[in-house]
Amino acid sequence: MGNKKLNTLLKNPPNWIDGKGRFAETILSSRVRFARNLKQFNFPNRTKEDELDEIMNFIISHINYKCITSLSEFSPLDKKFLVERRIISREFSKKTKGRGVGIWEGENIGLMLNENDHIRIHSICSGLNLELAYEKLNKLDDEFSESLPYAFSSKLGYLTACPTNTGTGLRASVLVHLPGLVHSEQIKKILEMLHKDGFLIKGFYSDGTMVEGNLFQISNQVTLGITEEEIIDKLHKMILQVIGYENNARELLLSNTRAQLEDKIWRAYSILKNARLLSNEEFINLSSAVRFGIELGILKKVSLQNLNKLLIFTQPAHLQESIGGMIDSTERNVKRALYVRKNL
Amino acid sequence: MGNKKLNTLLKNPPNWIDGKGRFAETILSSRVRFARNLKQFNFPNRTKEDELDEIMNFIISHINYKCITSLSEFSPLDKKFLVERRIISREFSKKTKGRGVGIWEGENIGLMLNENDHIRIHSICSGLNLELAYEKLNKLDDEFSESLPYAFSSKLGYLTACPTNTGTGLRASVLVHLPGLVHSEQIKKILEMLHKDGFLIKGFYSDGTMVEGNLFQISNQVTLGITEEEIIDKLHKMILQVIGYENNARELLLSNTRAQLEDKIWRAYSILKNARLLSNEEFINLSSAVRFGIELGILKKVSLQNLNKLLIFTQPAHLQESIGGMIDSTERNVKRALYVRKNL
Repeated sequence: MGNKKLNTLLKNPPNWIDGKGRFAETILSSRVRFARNLKQFNFPNRTKEDELDEIMNFIISHINYKCITSLSEFSPLDKKFLVERRIISREFSKKTKGRGVGIWEGENIGLMLNENDHIRIHSICSGLNLELAYEKLNKLDDEFSESLPYAFSSKLGYLTACPTNTGTGLRASVLVHLPGLVHSEQIKKILEMLHKDGFLIKGFYSDGTMVEGNLFQISNQVTLGITEEEIIDKLHKMILQVIGYENNARELLLSNTRAQLEDKIWRAYSILKNARLLSNEEFINLSSAVRFGIELGILKKVSLQNLNKLLIFTQPAHLQESIGGMIDSTERNVKRALYVRKNL
Repeated sequence: MGNKKLNTLLKNPPNWIDGKGRFAETILSSRVRFARNLKQFNFPNRTKEDELDEIMNFIISHINYKCITSLSEFSPLDKKFLVERRIISREFSKKTKGRGVGIWEGENIGLMLNENDHIRIHSICSGLNLELAYEKLNKLDDEFSESLPYAFSSKLGYLTACPTNTGTGLRASVLVHLPGLVHSEQIKKILEMLHKDGFLIKGFYSDGTMVEGNLFQISNQVTLGITEEEIIDKLHKMILQVIGYENNARELLLSNTRAQLEDKIWRAYSILKNARLLSNEEFINLSSAVRFGIELGILKKVSLQNLNKLLIFTQPAHLQESIGGMIDSTERNVKRALYVRKNL
């Protein structure tokens, strides 16, 4: 482990993946983030390194939250680890100086300083719980706003580096598992419906063409001309609708192709329990079948919580941090298979 | 079960697949058969139904071996079962009247009356043991020849319906498992070598293009101008040579691609232990990987004997006979998976 501050994270899975939230069988997590800027400074992409440090120091000295770590304290592997942990963005992980990271409440709350905006704060909760994520974040934002002069226009709302965030500066997203809609080939229809209704949906593990593990992230597209509460409420209702479609698809699949489905699920489980080489991609896809098996009550010996933990800890940087250094992909595949065999 | 005479066969695997013979880890079985004809009758393909019955009656009344069953006593499914059991040929199974079947010594010895020739007798032993198979068969043949006037020419030897059998009328064949040569892509070279040296080699489970389960049958091509003992000896030596090549290939594979090999073997084992649907073809291929795992000492909890038994009892007609009637291929795939889960 490059930075010792990550030791706790390496030992414990994040709170938001405990598999205990509402609809946890379909919804892995709910996330809300705010983009905020300080009025007296340029946006991070329009400023120099010195000013980035100045911004950092200003923020840290004005808020009560300690334990903000400079990004430069983390090794490249550490940063990949933080991306896998959903604490920092991939783009942010490529930076070094003048950036800060905060992690609180068992990873329910996270902070990036000088990403696209001066301040990005997010809150993640287990299952479908956008209200709680929003509530936690709002509380933190209120505290911050008491001591930090936010860039705010009475006409536009919060000003942000990218205009797509201007207004509320709020992005709410939900990580959903939709094997029923994928297997019954209804997913395209649902994607189109969501898009038409102003939501963004994309594969959570995706190279742009293939979606791995039937995991999708659904988020709001509009941040302007709508209240924060309306965004949360609209997304929440849409997710309930998607859950309804997913459940219908599952029931149909179960009654029409139960044998094939059970076969697929048992094979996936048995491969995870026995393989000696497992790529990250294959793990994600097989774990989707196992998740489906848990959700359908077919696989009773695996807990959702355990499977969620594996999804986090089998990622490339997690595997490498756990053994204390970089290894190539073949060796990772050996380690991943070993980890899964031991822990599933 | 159509014919009650098959009940014993449905309960017990044949002796020749007990996994206990020499080189049983590579050689499943050794088989020798004789083609014989009676001089006073036409060959079966040149005669009428009445004469077929006459030939049958003549043979049965002249030999001491009872328990010869008329083929017409078996249902179409029974006959498929007997083909899977290697007691009768596929061609023979399509016939009905004027044909007889004999099964003795726990299936070590078998007889077909009025197949291509008036008499076809075969002997099968476990592992590499052509000598024993030949010895048993020779003894039976001697007995037969005392009471049956064989069609024999002092110039040509035994006369047969098809000239490729004339002379000794002997076909010796060995069922070999060659995953090492297949995986290391040396099999083509070996096939060419065998062919050049006057041996026939073909996939044991094959549709003509693909060989399933890395199982090959190697047999002598020449029956004329060579003694019986020479045929047996030549084939035996060639098989020892093939075993040598196979073992070299295995050692190379193990030292170069151990992780991939172990992965393949464990996955195959786990799928067999957990699948809910298994086609015959997939079973044959996965069982090859498991067999390889047993042979390499990677899979220690499965016995060769048990795996051999599964190879026999998961065949389509075996599955159907065991539940007492015809079922379609999807239902067979369910039953096969269930049988394998329970018995592996």
